[in-house]
Amino acid sequence: MKILITGFDPFGGEPVNPAFEAVKLMKDEIAGAQIVKLEIPTVFGDSIEKVHAAMVAEKPDVVMSVGQAGGRFGVTPERVAINLSDARIPDNKGNQPLDAPIFEDGETGYLTTLPVKAMVEKIKEKGLPASVSYTAGSYVCNHVMYGNLYYAAKEFPNMKAGFVHVPFMTQQVVNRPNVPSMALSDIALALEACVEAIVENEKDIAVAGGETH
Amino acid sequence: MKILITGFDPFGGEPVNPAFEAVKLMKDEIAGAQIVKLEIPTVFGDSIEKVHAAMVAEKPDVVMSVGQAGGRFGVTPERVAINLSDARIPDNKGNQPLDAPIFEDGETGYLTTLPVKAMVEKIKEKGLPASVSYTAGSYVCNHVMYGNLYYAAKEFPNMKAGFVHVPFMTQQVVNRPNVPSMALSDIALALEACVEAIVENEKDIAVAGGETH
Amino acid sequence: MKILITGFDPFGGEPVNPAFEAVKLMKDEIAGAQIVKLEIPTVFGDSIEKVHAAMVAEKPDVVMSVGQAGGRFGVTPERVAINLSDARIPDNKGNQPLDAPIFEDGETGYLTTLPVKAMVEKIKEKGLPASVSYTAGSYVCNHVMYGNLYYAAKEFPNMKAGFVHVPFMTQQVVNRPNVPSMALSDIALALEACVEAIVENEKDIAVAGGETH
Amino acid sequence: MKILITGFDPFGGEPVNPAFEAVKLMKDEIAGAQIVKLEIPTVFGDSIEKVHAAMVAEKPDVVMSVGQAGGRFGVTPERVAINLSDARIPDNKGNQPLDAPIFEDGETGYLTTLPVKAMVEKIKEKGLPASVSYTAGSYVCNHVMYGNLYYAAKEFPNMKAGFVHVPFMTQQVVNRPNVPSMALSDIALALEACVEAIVENEKDIAVAGGETH
Repeated sequence: MKILITGFDPFGGEPVNPAFEAVKLMKDEIAGAQIVKLEIPTVFGDSIEKVHAAMVAEKPDVVMSVGQAGGRFGVTPERVAINLSDARIPDNKGNQPLDAPIFEDGETGYLTTLPVKAMVEKIKEKGLPASVSYTAGSYVCNHVMYGNLYYAAKEFPNMKAGFVHVPFMTQQVVNRPNVPSMALSDIALALEACVEAIVENEKDIAVAGGETH
Repeated sequence: MKILITGFDPFGGEPVNPAFEAVKLMKDEIAGAQIVKLEIPTVFGDSIEKVHAAMVAEKPDVVMSVGQAGGRFGVTPERVAINLSDARIPDNKGNQPLDAPIFEDGETGYLTTLPVKAMVEKIKEKGLPASVSYTAGSYVCNHVMYGNLYYAAKEFPNMKAGFVHVPFMTQQVVNRPNVPSMALSDIALALEACVEAIVENEKDIAVAGGETH
Repeated sequence: MKILITGFDPFGGEPVNPAFEAVKLMKDEIAGAQIVKLEIPTVFGDSIEKVHAAMVAEKPDVVMSVGQAGGRFGVTPERVAINLSDARIPDNKGNQPLDAPIFEDGETGYLTTLPVKAMVEKIKEKGLPASVSYTAGSYVCNHVMYGNLYYAAKEFPNMKAGFVHVPFMTQQVVNRPNVPSMALSDIALALEACVEAIVENEKDIAVAGGETH
Repeated sequence: MKILITGFDPFGGEPVNPAFEAVKLMKDEIAGAQIVKLEIPTVFGDSIEKVHAAMVAEKPDVVMSVGQAGGRFGVTPERVAINLSDARIPDNKGNQPLDAPIFEDGETGYLTTLPVKAMVEKIKEKGLPASVSYTAGSYVCNHVMYGNLYYAAKEFPNMKAGFVHVPFMTQQVVNRPNVPSMALSDIALALEACVEAIVENEKDIAVAGGETH
């Protein structure tokens, strides 16, 4: 199994983005699955295009994008992406779409095809906080999650896709009183736990439908 | 220089106490200072007696006690202890003092003799969140901090004393939604940073007053 | 203009539900619009059916449902409803759907047709906290919002529909340390502000498209 | 019985201070006690002097000062004041004492002589959130509380004194996401509840000690 994992570059004035920093720390093979890591820009449009190009080139079985959600207390796999961009601040190229659809011919929403509840359970088994989230917001994170699911639906019907939000890493909150964080190494462990849950889930599906293959 | 560092055993239904867990992870020598580690019970009276016995036996230059403050976002050196015990829950021996003084002949409050602002700065330099706190509460933590300062004032006038509160460690918040935490290893690093600040401060004092020694 | 406003009965062990309590305090005519108030049960299915019956009977121009979101700090008009019910606790009849669609023939998501940004601005003009929310959760609140938009799309194409979440009222947090709330009277004022924004928005649309009617 | 209640003028860039705004809304007679209201400046030194002048002129039985503690969720009677000023920001006259005692000849701390637990219970009976606080900080609020108790101890041994912190009023958090508040009218009700508890407490003491008077 091949799993494409993407993380964003820094945005919003932050010197680092815990998303790609944590992705870089992940093992290259997890539970037998090959991990392909990709840094993507925090830019509307460009980000999706870069993921799409990797979907075409790598033909992964799964795409899991990772982004920062400052203010959250744990790691939150996302349940749904919506066809809406509404940016509170400009992206890294100065784009700031307001109330705009992402793809004119896309559905209003796509539910993730990743096993988010199993991912949450696996993260908690490692002693780390996690919960399912029902909103990826309306910024570049939701945008990329939507793009993942849109292209999977249109072009790669067997490819699973989804998104995981992570909190600030601890170094980011030194001068932010009363803002939660996680150690970067723990964020990486949580993302590895997500992959383990995904691999187990795929095996369960394969076993359940095994005779027909 | 010899520094006595104490940590509590678990209380309030918690399986672990990040205070002594973190103390155990600390190096045995920090910035040239010898670290003496002591686990103390979360019990009114017994806790202070055990610290006092170690003060007598070890003759440390500094006593720094460490306790858990669940719900705080960072490591918080305490500025003041007050002569009051008022327990929301019983301690580990079932004692639950209400509105009671700790020592009848003690002052209403003692300010710490540790360099709390320098300790906060040193923790932040390590990329970890910290701030000075002005209340150690009215439970066993304040009780021990008060005892440290009371006995230092009465019996060991050159001994510096104080208290540091630490947040939950991450494993404690797995089933506590929206409660902040720090990685245990980061809590230990923060406590080591406290010791570094204390040692530097003592050296500054020694230099400033150097010719007379 | 006629506006149907619904509020839930209490659930989750709460003695009151600030949603319908606040709806009851709203004026019966706001900015020239007639307000029709309806209490609905916190029950999957029954709640939507009761709103649908009122849509048929009352033929309102707008349906705005209101629900409690304990833990939020302000009033939050919702942007999107998703075709998913996933209940953490049973509803008031003991139903607890898990990962279930609401309507098999519905879209994955519906964006509200209420002017949520204008509603937020109008609430803030009254000195009360508000923000647009991008998730109504996966419990009965999202269920009813989805139902409103589903039936509007299928049967009443000119009817505007949406949902507003409100925080706990102050009396609900007396024994909940560190949980935010608003005064019930302020919640009612915020809901009236929502109606004002909706009425103004409808007038703007009418003026803009005036000649062709 | 005569009760002097003080509230601060605005500081820290706020257009209003909920402390004196709420004091102004309080009734002039509560539970038979006469209420004397006094606005004091958010200035080290001047604030205490103004309260002291009123203590001398009015000879109240009780002094209860009120201040804003932005970020708190409920009304918090304070248990202790400490002999330390350490200002994060300058006061309204530009003073910014650091690590400075308030009165050289004062005790390190004074415990309030107000019945803070009864005050909390009375506030909660009104359906409003409250808890005892163990720190009034190190800014002008602690400064005034300390001054009240210092002068009571030195000059008016029968005068009861203390301090109550109140959260932001709702209008102050319109543009502060995720900051708690209370309605100004509810803050005023909570302060009236404090007075009721104080009056009942004084009556209980009078009855208990009745024969000797």
